[in-house]
Amino acid sequence: MLGVNTVRVRVPGTTANCGPGFDSIGIACDIYNELEVTLLKKDTITIEIVGEGKNSIPCDKRNVVWKSMQLLLKKAGQDYQGAHIKMLNNIPLARGLGSSAAAIVSGLMAANIAIGNVFDKQAILQMATEIEGHPDNVAPAIFGGITLSIMKEKQAETLSFMPGADLKLVVAIPSFNLSTKAARKVLPVNIPMKDAVFNISRTALLVGALCKGDLSHLQSALDDKIHQPYREQLIPGMQDVFQGAIKNGALGAVLSGAGPCLIAFTTDHVSEIGEAMVAAFKKHNISSKYLELKIDQQGVKTI
Amino acid sequence: MLGVNTVRVRVPGTTANCGPGFDSIGIACDIYNELEVTLLKKDTITIEIVGEGKNSIPCDKRNVVWKSMQLLLKKAGQDYQGAHIKMLNNIPLARGLGSSAAAIVSGLMAANIAIGNVFDKQAILQMATEIEGHPDNVAPAIFGGITLSIMKEKQAETLSFMPGADLKLVVAIPSFNLSTKAARKVLPVNIPMKDAVFNISRTALLVGALCKGDLSHLQSALDDKIHQPYREQLIPGMQDVFQGAIKNGALGAVLSGAGPCLIAFTTDHVSEIGEAMVAAFKKHNISSKYLELKIDQQGVKTI
Repeated sequence: MLGVNTVRVRVPGTTANCGPGFDSIGIACDIYNELEVTLLKKDTITIEIVGEGKNSIPCDKRNVVWKSMQLLLKKAGQDYQGAHIKMLNNIPLARGLGSSAAAIVSGLMAANIAIGNVFDKQAILQMATEIEGHPDNVAPAIFGGITLSIMKEKQAETLSFMPGADLKLVVAIPSFNLSTKAARKVLPVNIPMKDAVFNISRTALLVGALCKGDLSHLQSALDDKIHQPYREQLIPGMQDVFQGAIKNGALGAVLSGAGPCLIAFTTDHVSEIGEAMVAAFKKHNISSKYLELKIDQQGVKTI
Repeated sequence: MLGVNTVRVRVPGTTANCGPGFDSIGIACDIYNELEVTLLKKDTITIEIVGEGKNSIPCDKRNVVWKSMQLLLKKAGQDYQGAHIKMLNNIPLARGLGSSAAAIVSGLMAANIAIGNVFDKQAILQMATEIEGHPDNVAPAIFGGITLSIMKEKQAETLSFMPGADLKLVVAIPSFNLSTKAARKVLPVNIPMKDAVFNISRTALLVGALCKGDLSHLQSALDDKIHQPYREQLIPGMQDVFQGAIKNGALGAVLSGAGPCLIAFTTDHVSEIGEAMVAAFKKHNISSKYLELKIDQQGVKTI
């Protein structure tokens, strides 16, 4: 099926809501989905999936990759009606590692490249944000690195950077999934001013520490009072997993996105930290595995 | 009165609560108070004040410089009962430029140097935070630069850096003062989660933009929903002053500390911005003057 207008892209998984940086700080990770796309003028869609989601992701017009492609093609005034789509998925689904953002961003980028780069990355960000509803995961998936996002009216504005230190992420992936919608429901509408100030001050320290590579501050800077305490009920053993990671040398540990993945930040002792996280989940009868991830610097790209 | 154990220090004014960074982000400015201190074994205090506050600052044991010195001397087990104190004050009082923090920090530092540097700057920070009640102003007064502070249990933890760009501050100083206590009273106990997220995301972007010197983000990143809207009632013309600054080229404008000073951030057009700010205050029958300040890099130091 490899045609002259076949495009292949690679997109990173992402972790959002980083500690105090709820809805604000996202990080691209070196776990990737690959997408191969051939646009067709005729109304035929074939979708082949290898890896994560091969038995659960819809392979028809409901497919998120295709829907994202369609949106971009429509905006560009292109009349492609179908496509051959191949997905090689490594990012686990609905675990808080940005599988949905990866599908959206890879679909948009592949379609954009296939029609000759009609849109720049800022326009892709805007489309991706519209589809996903927020920029937290799509922004780092597009730009790579640690990505700070705000919504200003309906526009996403972002800044990406690589940390000034060799930071590793140890991700514990439990064997259950959690919808972002369910995780949103447990959050309160109003919160104490002092909790907001707690998170604001730690967000400032976290971004400063990451920019400057002064990781000694991470243990304090990763604390949060506005989302994790409310979501703890949805992730059995969360505090024990955090403690297991920290006792084994992690600088701090946080919920990844809306969960249920938990992420420890470290410079060393990866296997001890990962095993402690898996053991802590096991105490709560949750089976899990861990991955060592690094920060992806490039974001989505052609391969 | 200049004795062998006479110490002279210089301490910067500071602006806190920087936009979204309520209780978190402080900046040391190149407006300075100077303090000359000679410790005495006998119970005699002479206090001479030149400049700001010469008619209002108490010149007896209630003086904040002396009280701060006393606290440090007591902690060090030193039995100095009195002092000759000379204050040369340029930082206006109770305007939101950290005059109180400057008095505390200069007193602590001068006493510490006079007894042979018994304490390090981290210990000075801790004492200053105890006296002031929060680290927002004392931390940048001690360390200089843009200083991020958190309170962890009762300990202050800070990170200081200089911005990666030539940033200027235009400060409009209105001719009335405002106590931090009064400004605290108008703040609500609870706030909407969405306002907290608004500030968290902008705090992240602000710190990232300042660290990286990418000032294009400042206009969005300086927005705030959790303190300025509530304090606006205490500062007639605040929004007009902000708009005047922005229309004349400022990247953004914020309340300085608890006010009433208002600060515009810019790289250029200082006089146009300053004059527009003064004119906007005047429309609301508030007389004011403006100063161009730069960021102080050194914090408190011996002179």
